Amino acid sequence: MLIVKKFGGTSVADKERIFHVAERCIEEYRKGNQVVVVLSAMGKLTDELIAMAKDINPNPSKREMDMLLTTGEQTSVSLMAMAMDALGVAAVSLNAFQVAMHTTSDYSNARLLKIDAERIRMELDQRKIVIITGFQGVDRNDNYTTLGRGGSDTTAVALAAALRADACEIYTDVDGVYTADPRVVKTARKLDEITYDEMLELASLGAGVLHNRCVELAKKYGVQIVVRSSLNNHEGTIVKENVDMEKMLVSGVAGDKNAARIAVVGLEDQPGVAFKLFNHLANHNINVDVILQSVGRDGTKDISFTVDREVADEAMEILERHRKTSLKCQSINLDKSIAKVSVVGAGMVSNAGVAARMFEAMYDANVNIRMISTSEIKVTVIIDEKNLERAMNAAHEAFNLGAK
Amino acid sequence: MLIVKKFGGTSVADKERIFHVAERCIEEYRKGNQVVVVLSAMGKLTDELIAMAKDINPNPSKREMDMLLTTGEQTSVSLMAMAMDALGVAAVSLNAFQVAMHTTSDYSNARLLKIDAERIRMELDQRKIVIITGFQGVDRNDNYTTLGRGGSDTTAVALAAALRADACEIYTDVDGVYTADPRVVKTARKLDEITYDEMLELASLGAGVLHNRCVELAKKYGVQIVVRSSLNNHEGTIVKENVDMEKMLVSGVAGDKNAARIAVVGLEDQPGVAFKLFNHLANHNINVDVILQSVGRDGTKDISFTVDREVADEAMEILERHRKTSLKCQSINLDKSIAKVSVVGAGMVSNAGVAARMFEAMYDANVNIRMISTSEIKVTVIIDEKNLERAMNAAHEAFNLGAK
Repeated sequence: MLIVKKFGGTSVADKERIFHVAERCIEEYRKGNQVVVVLSAMGKLTDELIAMAKDINPNPSKREMDMLLTTGEQTSVSLMAMAMDALGVAAVSLNAFQVAMHTTSDYSNARLLKIDAERIRMELDQRKIVIITGFQGVDRNDNYTTLGRGGSDTTAVALAAALRADACEIYTDVDGVYTADPRVVKTARKLDEITYDEMLELASLGAGVLHNRCVELAKKYGVQIVVRSSLNNHEGTIVKENVDMEKMLVSGVAGDKNAARIAVVGLEDQPGVAFKLFNHLANHNINVDVILQSVGRDGTKDISFTVDREVADEAMEILERHRKTSLKCQSINLDKSIAKVSVVGAGMVSNAGVAARMFEAMYDANVNIRMISTSEIKVTVIIDEKNLERAMNAAHEAFNLGAK
Repeated sequence: MLIVKKFGGTSVADKERIFHVAERCIEEYRKGNQVVVVLSAMGKLTDELIAMAKDINPNPSKREMDMLLTTGEQTSVSLMAMAMDALGVAAVSLNAFQVAMHTTSDYSNARLLKIDAERIRMELDQRKIVIITGFQGVDRNDNYTTLGRGGSDTTAVALAAALRADACEIYTDVDGVYTADPRVVKTARKLDEITYDEMLELASLGAGVLHNRCVELAKKYGVQIVVRSSLNNHEGTIVKENVDMEKMLVSGVAGDKNAARIAVVGLEDQPGVAFKLFNHLANHNINVDVILQSVGRDGTKDISFTVDREVADEAMEILERHRKTSLKCQSINLDKSIAKVSVVGAGMVSNAGVAARMFEAMYDANVNIRMISTSEIKVTVIIDEKNLERAMNAAHEAFNLGAK
């Protein structure tokens, strides 16, 4: 078996943890498996490097920032190779240049293009554990790039695809993917399996253990991911294309406080109004989530939508700038005290009644619904932030997620 | 003009010093020159990385050690590029991969083979200051290597040669090359010029501001080096092939305490004895410096030689192991309390009497000479360590080096 194992920054934060990871990988190796390890930068190192850079230049070039940050993973992988060597196992560390991890030139947020697996195969054939820098790549002009958030997970999945690995294990500090955040919903339960699509919905809803790009890549290349804990030997959660037919209607409940609602009131009821509105935001790379349009009494219409809370002020500024010119609306209001609650499940595609049961649960819990959004495998309601915990527990219970 | 400037670790140890170096380079750039900057790792970073490694593996593989250490210079160069950018000048940092700094695979002590200057030229043509990692290279299999002691100076000279630079400036914390160590000889004076050969002798004698490999490379490719201070704008010392005809007989006095004397007493007086003796040491990469052979009264001979003090114990061990077998000598003695004093000067090639004047100076200063060694441009005497300071001052005065 060829196994790709990815460990995050906290898993390699100090000597003790480095050896813990090394031992875990060696255990797999001694069973006769080929082992590829993907590592992030140690603990807070990336943050420290960013602080050093910002101290020198508050607005550093992204190209140079990536040049700086890629030293972080290189430090991790070389120390890991030394640790394995100390434990008597041959290991070799490789960085993005050495494994030819080709990406686009979008510094700080590059996309993987191609991996040349030849070097890795050669080292594996020599019975070495191969330790590879996550998060980083090189562009066509030999500049370093980084992959942005969730980068090391994406590296691991890409390597698993390129090497046609038998398994891709992402190690985290939780046991796997849960039916809800256990800190909020006490009865939350670890899932044994979840589909790519469900994982994508959960990730985009802020409940994600895995970043969307990593899951998208896994889906595209059919790489089965196992999310499991680096602290114990529990089975973890398998992320794959299809799960058992008998699986539940709903796999999980996600809550997200990182949302704000903007209401554009009194727009002229003419074609092209919505286009203009959202085009202004798109031009500034502001993503809009749930959208609701309602017709006002005086021949005008109102459009409400949610955005990530951190870009809410910027969105308001942009819209205010165009309020009297292209938008021609009466007022624009911002509400930052909202939250999103969603139930996600591949099973609901063929099941009516999921949305109704969700609304009923909110009603029973005395939670007022402000907006609604549904997709094939998701029902989302926008509520007041103060009701979030109650709403999540109500949904979790309504779909019987706590029971095994 | 194309100018290569090299700054050591102390020159980039913190934000303030990084900006100081950046300003200095920008000054040159604004005169219309093309500027290539070579940097070492910041301050104590290399030491810290080594400590981290040894904590994990007391005997880390050299390949992984180089993988770890090369992050040091990469950190320096990216931060420097950010600093220049903050000062409004376009700059780009490049590491050993990016400039294709090809070396042998001798990890921790690799030798440069070839530099592909294309990328550097392209960046210079775009009016960027190009900042390059010193000390590091890549081998034919894309592994990182490091160049060993004096590595960054060597990188600078190699780049100057590859780019056919008009100047190669090595910045240090002293004003240049002195006639003697100013801490020992109060009247020591900075030299305006010195030849490669003199510099090589001085470097090998422990007085070197520049490492031998760097000077050898400069000599081979005719790269004129300027050694100057990063703290002021003084002229520095030019290291080149030939210096003024009227120059002094002797350029400098060097003292070296890092020496030990081993006496192998009572060897059989037969051919091949010296070969066997030094071959044992050569097999363990122990370099021998001054050698003295004398014939004993009973048909045996004694061989004395000096080695670096840190390898003296190892050398003794090796010789003791062979004492009764291949060496067949009576005893082997070690004296760690010796020192070397040398006068160096290209002018002495065509001048008799230099050695005599050196011996006279030692006699006048009441310094007993234990061994003598001479080359075309050097006279070295081995003395008791306790006499070193007196001997250096005596030699400095005898050759009138303090006077301008």
